[in-house]
Amino acid sequence: MDKVRKIEDSDLDAVEIGAAILGTGGGGNPYIGKWRCRQELRKGNKIDVIPLDELPDDALVVSLGGIGAPVVGVEKIERGDECLRALRAIEQELDCKVDALISSEIGGANAMEPMLTAAQAGIPVVDGDGMGRAFPEMQMCTWSIYGHKSTPAAMADEKDNVVVIRNTRDEVWVETIARATVVSMGAAAAIAMAPMRGEFVKKAAVPNTITQALSLGQAVLDAQARNLDPIATVLKQETGKLLMTGKIVDLERHLKGGFARGHIHLEGFGNNQGERGEIAIQNEFLVFWRDGEMEVCVPDLIVVLDADTGLPITTEVLRYGQRIAVLALPCHDLLRTPRALEVIGPAAFGYPELSFTPLDRAELGGA
Amino acid sequence: MDKVRKIEDSDLDAVEIGAAILGTGGGGNPYIGKWRCRQELRKGNKIDVIPLDELPDDALVVSLGGIGAPVVGVEKIERGDECLRALRAIEQELDCKVDALISSEIGGANAMEPMLTAAQAGIPVVDGDGMGRAFPEMQMCTWSIYGHKSTPAAMADEKDNVVVIRNTRDEVWVETIARATVVSMGAAAAIAMAPMRGEFVKKAAVPNTITQALSLGQAVLDAQARNLDPIATVLKQETGKLLMTGKIVDLERHLKGGFARGHIHLEGFGNNQGERGEIAIQNEFLVFWRDGEMEVCVPDLIVVLDADTGLPITTEVLRYGQRIAVLALPCHDLLRTPRALEVIGPAAFGYPELSFTPLDRAELGGA
Repeated sequence: MDKVRKIEDSDLDAVEIGAAILGTGGGGNPYIGKWRCRQELRKGNKIDVIPLDELPDDALVVSLGGIGAPVVGVEKIERGDECLRALRAIEQELDCKVDALISSEIGGANAMEPMLTAAQAGIPVVDGDGMGRAFPEMQMCTWSIYGHKSTPAAMADEKDNVVVIRNTRDEVWVETIARATVVSMGAAAAIAMAPMRGEFVKKAAVPNTITQALSLGQAVLDAQARNLDPIATVLKQETGKLLMTGKIVDLERHLKGGFARGHIHLEGFGNNQGERGEIAIQNEFLVFWRDGEMEVCVPDLIVVLDADTGLPITTEVLRYGQRIAVLALPCHDLLRTPRALEVIGPAAFGYPELSFTPLDRAELGGA
Repeated sequence: MDKVRKIEDSDLDAVEIGAAILGTGGGGNPYIGKWRCRQELRKGNKIDVIPLDELPDDALVVSLGGIGAPVVGVEKIERGDECLRALRAIEQELDCKVDALISSEIGGANAMEPMLTAAQAGIPVVDGDGMGRAFPEMQMCTWSIYGHKSTPAAMADEKDNVVVIRNTRDEVWVETIARATVVSMGAAAAIAMAPMRGEFVKKAAVPNTITQALSLGQAVLDAQARNLDPIATVLKQETGKLLMTGKIVDLERHLKGGFARGHIHLEGFGNNQGERGEIAIQNEFLVFWRDGEMEVCVPDLIVVLDADTGLPITTEVLRYGQRIAVLALPCHDLLRTPRALEVIGPAAFGYPELSFTPLDRAELGGA
């Protein structure tokens, strides 16, 4: 266990920025979670991150995170022990102790929740997650895609309500029931699910994503400190591609079934003068079109940064007139298999006419 | 246990009619449950009904029933073991065997569900229930009114989905979460809840209501066989009052939040010629007004019978032009305490301006 990385107070700002970028517009705001983590560290508790390959095969690992509408999470602030109580509920259900936690999605607030809970419970968090980004629905986790049952799953809210989804017909039913439950709870709650053995986690988790968020955020902070272009920094760090710089000239966004859905329309400027862009949203940015032609879509990452500061913009704070840079980052190979594309390809989001063409890492200059 | 009453095949038609009358328009249709009970009896299984005073103080009793929109229960037919699986889920949660079942509500389909499950599980059903009629929401059970927690509660549907509500802030939250869950499951599911000791059940249950449904139904069947007036028979059997005979001249009814809500408008005929009646609905009949003046309201029972056949009409089969008899039956004293009226009085249904004046049993000729 000498490869355990301790997350320090000074790392948290970087993790926040990196997680927000990987959130591709969704996943909830990591800001409050960052401060709760900081509070735990200042109390003397530890956030120990263990690499996937240090995880014992028989370790019991639980996937943890918040569920709900990101826009609600900003106003209905957590009590702070929701994830811990969800963890305890699943331990009660299994009648044994959980050895380590893993984030259901590294993108957004759910990067912080398992670190917070790890500090509270005194167990480590695994360096990896179930999405390598953020996605709006739970069956979109790699655990679920690669054959693990998400049940039992335990949900807890700030009102002491605890619900256990003990069994479901299939993975989509976990999402359906959990979504209905979280809406009844006020559209924000914690969920601990998919108790897994280390052996499976090593195969199914997107690896090293806490470290990835930390390095990415650190690179952005360094660029800011040295007055370098933060957008170029993100592109270099993640071997990504700048799709367009443009102004938001139209924005449709509505809350439907607990999700933020909509479209952004862009008018390009700079090198993109005269071009028109469009982005589809379901909590996250799903598809990018240039002049009516699809260029990038899920599961690859579409990231929106403020064109001036380079800071990530989440779907709930988009507004008319914003000047943004739209970036595309390649997703992990675990998300690109035929099996994964059935669950997180464009057809799964209501775009059966689109076919996923992976961003080419070699062409982008990556490995 | 020599006072145990065995429900026979020949009793089931009577229980069906009695339960439908006590359902005051709601509670779901007991027809399919009757046939499932019959099937169990024909297989050689037993429906043993034990009187409240025969129940051991330390017996573990679980309240059982269907939850959902009655109108859905008619079309989305149960697999038949939903309640049994809800029972097994609560046994797993408590890590012990349940000794006896009790109906959450005697009115409608939930008279049959515990008898069916008792036959399947080989345990007795208690002669009593949690409402003495039907009500639309779960916190309206006497267990809940008289201080018992409804959690843990276990829900099961026909798709193998099982959800456990392990803890809630209060009783209304059980209803809120269970309602959201059942809507996600397709608006019909089974729920086992409120694990109680016999000692509490003896104090809080509305007593003898299986026997009551059976005798009431038997009286109606006898009256039909001897060509006597079935409406007069119901009134005599339950010491009730005929409020109005009339024709439905207007009917507003809509499904809202999983409930059938609406109003019926009546034009009186016979002795009620020239009068106008109105009834408010939330799954059950809640309030009766004559010429704009409230005469009877919850928790007393408002029963609608077909004016010609005397058979009960449930809210989902009401239609324009129907000729109906509106009856009022006094509810049990357990539903009339100040504590009960807070939960099941007119204010709880959105009529804070109405005050409950109990139907007077003495005046009606009762004890």
